[in-house]
Amino acid sequence: MEKFETRVRVRYEETDQMGAVHHSKYIVYFELGRTEFMRHLGFPYSELEKDGFFLPITECYAKYHAPCKFEDEIIIVTSLGEIKNVRIKFNYKIFLKADIDGQKLLAEGYTVLGCLNKEGKIIKLPEKIRRLRNA
Amino acid sequence: MEKFETRVRVRYEETDQMGAVHHSKYIVYFELGRTEFMRHLGFPYSELEKDGFFLPITECYAKYHAPCKFEDEIIIVTSLGEIKNVRIKFNYKIFLKADIDGQKLLAEGYTVLGCLNKEGKIIKLPEKIRRLRNA
Amino acid sequence: MEKFETRVRVRYEETDQMGAVHHSKYIVYFELGRTEFMRHLGFPYSELEKDGFFLPITECYAKYHAPCKFEDEIIIVTSLGEIKNVRIKFNYKIFLKADIDGQKLLAEGYTVLGCLNKEGKIIKLPEKIRRLRNA
Amino acid sequence: MEKFETRVRVRYEETDQMGAVHHSKYIVYFELGRTEFMRHLGFPYSELEKDGFFLPITECYAKYHAPCKFEDEIIIVTSLGEIKNVRIKFNYKIFLKADIDGQKLLAEGYTVLGCLNKEGKIIKLPEKIRRLRNA
Repeated sequence: MEKFETRVRVRYEETDQMGAVHHSKYIVYFELGRTEFMRHLGFPYSELEKDGFFLPITECYAKYHAPCKFEDEIIIVTSLGEIKNVRIKFNYKIFLKADIDGQKLLAEGYTVLGCLNKEGKIIKLPEKIRRLRNA
Repeated sequence: MEKFETRVRVRYEETDQMGAVHHSKYIVYFELGRTEFMRHLGFPYSELEKDGFFLPITECYAKYHAPCKFEDEIIIVTSLGEIKNVRIKFNYKIFLKADIDGQKLLAEGYTVLGCLNKEGKIIKLPEKIRRLRNA
Repeated sequence: MEKFETRVRVRYEETDQMGAVHHSKYIVYFELGRTEFMRHLGFPYSELEKDGFFLPITECYAKYHAPCKFEDEIIIVTSLGEIKNVRIKFNYKIFLKADIDGQKLLAEGYTVLGCLNKEGKIIKLPEKIRRLRNA
Repeated sequence: MEKFETRVRVRYEETDQMGAVHHSKYIVYFELGRTEFMRHLGFPYSELEKDGFFLPITECYAKYHAPCKFEDEIIIVTSLGEIKNVRIKFNYKIFLKADIDGQKLLAEGYTVLGCLNKEGKIIKLPEKIRRLRNA
């Protein structure tokens, strides 16, 4: 299971006065793709947190190719990057769901996540996540 | 101490494609006015929460008179409404800080807050807050 | 066509440190319900704006009954309220999509929208919207 | 004029259920630092846009060192990076305004901005901005 697609429609609130989605909202789209992907893999965030694993972002990058507009349907493609004992990387591509001629890349990027316990101390990622390395 | 003024400048991210501040952001301005007011009164939220008092919003109303624009300086005027044992009301008026001819009302509204303990059970507001009734 | 349902899953970004969805995000859920409803009725916002009709919120109210949690699936039920020449009201109910025993009301509210032209002058709502009165 | 400081207090709405500021909000802090810096330099965004220059983000990076908490006072230090004819880079460092023992680095990053005209075509940055290269 290497890639996962999440489909979402752009909300009015996500636009800014330039007439397209504000750049900080793509970071939220990345998160949406990642959390849906992890739920699909069998590790919903809400359960991880109940088990005492918190996954804060330690690094985040986005490159913007073309604007997302209100009411656009977009596809967030999330894939696994490098998995270490104490951190995991996810890569993202956001496409416009074009009606006829295929898909247009709107943005891409990555996030790196660490792993903390409830007290905020760095701990190893849950084993079921670390095992994805061999998948 | 009946009224409190908070000054803030509109952020680009708060606008939407209509070219003014998105209506949901006024609710955030209300919160900003309220939390600054409570800090000023000697009850910062962060301390209340450490002491085990959580104040969720139970009701919220806003009336919009004129648009806030990016880079506008606005003044949030927060005042106390009715204080009951288990809930407290705050009223808000948001003005444009006009340079010459006084202030223009942009929006007004209120929020009602309840009081919960860490387990989410309804409890009485901290006594120091209930005592504001007699102030 | 009197009611419309929109289903959405709570995003991590929508939570706050109280551990549930921030109250201002319900206003965004209302908007999501309303814009999906209008698209369904054949009046997508993006087309209205292209035709020179802008629908700013003039009033907004929400009552919160129970917290929405991260990863909850919620159902936004949007219905038409009073339609005047220059304003339209929408009513909202947000339910938790419970697996077994039916639906739990999380929040309800309304918004009133005005109608402006590109220059920001109050104008009549498009006729196709005003005609909904008789629907 | 190489660096500019913007001071701001963390808003409740900016936190998430992990108990600290959501990572996407640092991107908004970067924007706040940048727009205040540009206003200080004499090029407020609102004027640039009136003159027909739109500056969308083409790239964005953030590295997170320590969490920002609600009610923390933070200092956003914005500085100019490379300036080309059609793009400009800004660098950011976000510090906790510590009371006694100096400042703690919470996050750092950069954004690259392009320049578009009203029709969305790439154009040169306004001359007054390009001239900053020689400042």
